Amino acid sequence: MPKRKIYLEDISLDEAWARLISALDSVGLWQPFPGETVPLPDALGRITAEPIWAKLSAPHYHASAMDGYAVRARDTATASDATPVHLTIGDDGQAKYVDTGDPVPAWADAVIPIENVQLIETSNFKSQIPKSQNPNSPQSAISNLQSAIEIRASVTPWSHVRPMGEDMVATELVLPSNHTLRPVDLGAIAGCGHTSVSVRRKPRVAVIPTGTELVSAGSEVTAGDIIEYNSLVLAAQVETWGGLATRHPIVPDDFDKITAAAREAAQTHDLVLLNAGSSAGSRDFSARVVETLGTLLVHGVAVRPGHPVIIGTLSVVGRPTPVVPMIGVPGYPVSAALTAEIFVEPILSRWLGRAPLHPPTLSATISRKVLSPMGDDEYMRVTVGKVGDRAIATPLSRGAGVITSLVRADGIVRIPRYSEGLQAGDPVTVHLYRTPREIENTIVAIGSHDLCLDLLGQFLAERAPGRRLSSANVGSLGGLIALKRGEAHLAGTHLLDPDTGEYNVPYVKRYLPDTPVVLVTLVGREQGLIVRPGNPKSIQTLADVVRDDVTFVNRQRGAGTRVLFDYEIVKLGLKAESVRGYDREEYTHLAVAAAVASGLADCGLGIHSASAALGLEFIPLFKERYDLAIPKTFFDSPILKPLLDVLNDAVFRRTVSQLPGYDVRQMGAVAAEVL
Amino acid sequence: MPKRKIYLEDISLDEAWARLISALDSVGLWQPFPGETVPLPDALGRITAEPIWAKLSAPHYHASAMDGYAVRARDTATASDATPVHLTIGDDGQAKYVDTGDPVPAWADAVIPIENVQLIETSNFKSQIPKSQNPNSPQSAISNLQSAIEIRASVTPWSHVRPMGEDMVATELVLPSNHTLRPVDLGAIAGCGHTSVSVRRKPRVAVIPTGTELVSAGSEVTAGDIIEYNSLVLAAQVETWGGLATRHPIVPDDFDKITAAAREAAQTHDLVLLNAGSSAGSRDFSARVVETLGTLLVHGVAVRPGHPVIIGTLSVVGRPTPVVPMIGVPGYPVSAALTAEIFVEPILSRWLGRAPLHPPTLSATISRKVLSPMGDDEYMRVTVGKVGDRAIATPLSRGAGVITSLVRADGIVRIPRYSEGLQAGDPVTVHLYRTPREIENTIVAIGSHDLCLDLLGQFLAERAPGRRLSSANVGSLGGLIALKRGEAHLAGTHLLDPDTGEYNVPYVKRYLPDTPVVLVTLVGREQGLIVRPGNPKSIQTLADVVRDDVTFVNRQRGAGTRVLFDYEIVKLGLKAESVRGYDREEYTHLAVAAAVASGLADCGLGIHSASAALGLEFIPLFKERYDLAIPKTFFDSPILKPLLDVLNDAVFRRTVSQLPGYDVRQMGAVAAEVL
Repeated sequence: MPKRKIYLEDISLDEAWARLISALDSVGLWQPFPGETVPLPDALGRITAEPIWAKLSAPHYHASAMDGYAVRARDTATASDATPVHLTIGDDGQAKYVDTGDPVPAWADAVIPIENVQLIETSNFKSQIPKSQNPNSPQSAISNLQSAIEIRASVTPWSHVRPMGEDMVATELVLPSNHTLRPVDLGAIAGCGHTSVSVRRKPRVAVIPTGTELVSAGSEVTAGDIIEYNSLVLAAQVETWGGLATRHPIVPDDFDKITAAAREAAQTHDLVLLNAGSSAGSRDFSARVVETLGTLLVHGVAVRPGHPVIIGTLSVVGRPTPVVPMIGVPGYPVSAALTAEIFVEPILSRWLGRAPLHPPTLSATISRKVLSPMGDDEYMRVTVGKVGDRAIATPLSRGAGVITSLVRADGIVRIPRYSEGLQAGDPVTVHLYRTPREIENTIVAIGSHDLCLDLLGQFLAERAPGRRLSSANVGSLGGLIALKRGEAHLAGTHLLDPDTGEYNVPYVKRYLPDTPVVLVTLVGREQGLIVRPGNPKSIQTLADVVRDDVTFVNRQRGAGTRVLFDYEIVKLGLKAESVRGYDREEYTHLAVAAAVASGLADCGLGIHSASAALGLEFIPLFKERYDLAIPKTFFDSPILKPLLDVLNDAVFRRTVSQLPGYDVRQMGAVAAEVL
Repeated sequence: MPKRKIYLEDISLDEAWARLISALDSVGLWQPFPGETVPLPDALGRITAEPIWAKLSAPHYHASAMDGYAVRARDTATASDATPVHLTIGDDGQAKYVDTGDPVPAWADAVIPIENVQLIETSNFKSQIPKSQNPNSPQSAISNLQSAIEIRASVTPWSHVRPMGEDMVATELVLPSNHTLRPVDLGAIAGCGHTSVSVRRKPRVAVIPTGTELVSAGSEVTAGDIIEYNSLVLAAQVETWGGLATRHPIVPDDFDKITAAAREAAQTHDLVLLNAGSSAGSRDFSARVVETLGTLLVHGVAVRPGHPVIIGTLSVVGRPTPVVPMIGVPGYPVSAALTAEIFVEPILSRWLGRAPLHPPTLSATISRKVLSPMGDDEYMRVTVGKVGDRAIATPLSRGAGVITSLVRADGIVRIPRYSEGLQAGDPVTVHLYRTPREIENTIVAIGSHDLCLDLLGQFLAERAPGRRLSSANVGSLGGLIALKRGEAHLAGTHLLDPDTGEYNVPYVKRYLPDTPVVLVTLVGREQGLIVRPGNPKSIQTLADVVRDDVTFVNRQRGAGTRVLFDYEIVKLGLKAESVRGYDREEYTHLAVAAAVASGLADCGLGIHSASAALGLEFIPLFKERYDLAIPKTFFDSPILKPLLDVLNDAVFRRTVSQLPGYDVRQMGAVAAEVL
């Protein structure tokens, strides 16, 4: 599509909010919703719209707090071991049996627990009540017996009595409005005489996915099809925040159809989310739809990701308010989810009479330099690892299309507008997606990638619920550097020393000279060339990678596989410059396999399991040892114990051994202690 | 009921758990439940039973990251301002238009954003594309035009391309098992080709309330009736923790009926909660029911509240396991809720494959001495106030019947077995029921009670969502002492100085000599005698309280009303000893009114509104000034601003003025600054 005006605005978050609030406030929409009455059993998690005043006192009578005898305290004043007092049992006598919760008779003002009295005979009856007596009607049975109790200590007035109103006094404030109801709140509300409660109506939110390229989850996909899941995420977010979401079917990129869908949704919802089409491209209709149906307030906010967001109001008829707010949500999944966190959640909170949600925060140190665009407030996803005493935040992919960056994120670091970014070591505040406890229970692995690490994480989650493996793939050397910086508990490493032919030990000595490290073997594995099925280029040996008709895909500098490749081609007397594609670097075995599968390259060096995972062919060439490098302090600490246990788990070993190209015989063995 | 053996056990929490886990483990019930498959839109908040591996890569093709032109990077190598490069537009030419998300053609390896190119004519066509052209089919339109793009800078390979698998590579681990699904997780799972997910089955929990004295919420109640709400609380707790609860109708205290209900519930549930009847009294059938239907494992745990808890297993037939666990939950509401937290939640977490829930903790200082029974692990409810830099934990009522102690609790302090308790000032760990942020946003009021404080809290919650007033009633003098100790932000006080007749100022000078304090008037109010409707004892003046036929109910020492009473009877020349009931102390005006309403006393000194709230008669005697004493540092701080704003809120003033006996003319005015 040819030239067009890029007319997105670039206003600040504050200005965007000011415009939205002003528009809503002018029609009475910037305030909590009125209440609706719901029965108590349905009120869990709802927010009170009115205060709850006690209708009844609790208890609503003077209640015995024990099984025992109701008495007048003054009748016991002289009781002692030397001068026991006898009180006659009877309905309006001196003592009356009461169960816990029974009313204390009007004439009584204390209860003596049953274990503190002795039953005695006062007439011609036997001193002990027959055991066979019906235990369900003790009072009547006892009063008929005309017996008495003997007490040997005085009691104070109101002892073992729960006076009327001890818990709640009628008319008292039990809970204020704008309170989120918890289980015990429901009990208190019922206990003071209510059966229902007035709670804020749930905001109804329409989620309309638009885009001709979208297909529903579960469809067969061909190149260019995009699986529509933003509406799933947005609807789930709305539910999480206390709203009711309606997912509209996918609407193609057709101005009239999108307009019709938005107009209809506005009639029956409190908020309309129009997903994608919010930018300024030729197929971006959202802004025009809003202008047609109401007022465009904001088109483009200086926030990243999420810049091309739209805020507007849609006119409605026959509803209590003349407009309904609308948000044009950008199409990239990370932008969509964060736009909802930034704009939708606070609107819902306002309507629900609740303060906007504030995630817990954690102070951390950023592990690497981050450049941030000056003009934008940036929401950067990070993982957070508690390694020793330090919390380290490591930036994740900043691609707005990488939903797994949100899935793997432990939190968000906000880089404010007019900041150029962060230096490695800068303190940052992380707005957490997990509890601080989850962070504490996370084992941080940074280093080489292997499928067994994924499996190890999976087994750890099963064997030790609550314990989690966070795994960042930066290559073997990157892992050792992360250990040196105190950023990780362990590093997966398979670094061949060209001088000695030894694995890992020389590198650990060189990069961690001052840190005692234990090398625990994870697996032995095969490295080889990954080629397309049928091996169309007839690649047989490593020497084939310099053929003119062969394109190679490489691993990044510092990766063990890259070290191995460089070592082996030098051995063959080949030059890196003669390898087509030597400069195309990927960060994982699977990414190399994916490059081969997609035709981007004809071959790459990698492990058998990655090749097998994508249905490719594998030409085995080398065997290598893949170790976990673990600083001794962590090796001996409780945080790693469950992970080391998994290495000795028979099921885990069997599972790994069933993957192609793995040798589990040394799994869990200490390959070396480098002190 | 006569003597009986008190045969409750007294075992430790650890021992109780050991018996339960051993019994469940022996029948394969101490492990996570297997999975059930649910569609993704229903999976929010559920816990994965199996790991999720990517079925598709995302993107599943090389996708353009921008609207622009797909090119070969090497074709742009020489481009600069001085030497622009022209590339012909066409489907398999040198440049091809792509929208964001479109597949990049196989021959291309980079995308140049549309804003970085200039369209030029390469044939006899005009240089600009007509604006009227259908924007939905740009590629075909443009290729037909045989035009070209001019670029003035080279691009690197793969710029503005999202390579296949950038987000997820097929076969990769996306999420492990035992993971609680959040909105973004659902997106990632859909994005890699799934439409459903295997999640842990929700544990089914039967909640059976038993007790002849129980009545359903909403019933007319008479003395001795107890409103049954434990099953409401227990069911809501189970739902909160991820289970499915069934509330059984109330079962009377009848061994056969309870046995039948438990037997039936066990056939269709994973866990049976039998509420009340768990002690060793004559009407406590739970232990016998368990012995009849299965095995009694534990009867009585050294935990407080909640001691008489029962743990057992019920035998079942025709189910996958031979038994179903059963918990006998004590009847007092606080015991019931805490027993569920202590025993039910960890069982559900285990079945759901999740670590037991761990609330956030906060380090605080305990504000007063606490004696704790040596033999028990005590779960003490506390409020927590952040006053200045210190977090202060204040114990709430320890009565197991006081559900509001759980409602008002900010957290739990665990006092371990074999500890005798705590000294004021001891450091404690509070297991929070609220977020640390909620604690930070809480205004702590300790002092005299007035209904206006309840209203103030209510208005604060409405006017400033998220801000909360925590109010403890210890009397005016207690409030000033709390201020002195740094435990409160403000204290309600109405202390008459007998020497000067002045309110509050002399007391503040005496008790807070070193602290600048601002006295802000809340209300002027009437004090008088509260009597029953119709004034049956014909009480007319304060002098009547010494009549032989009149019983008085007093306020506690240090209460402003007590000071006033003592001052006024001395003025009349009366003696405290001649007042019947002088020693019966209540802590609030409402409690005094409740004592009169229930017939416990004939009169008490209090405020008009408390009398009116319970429909009593009021004999006005005195006028007094009720101030909020606020240390200057808090008066000037942002935390109190929204509260002080409410004092100037017209609606608040009108609401208070409509209560009987209040004068709002001085509301919000600074009565004195005591520096």
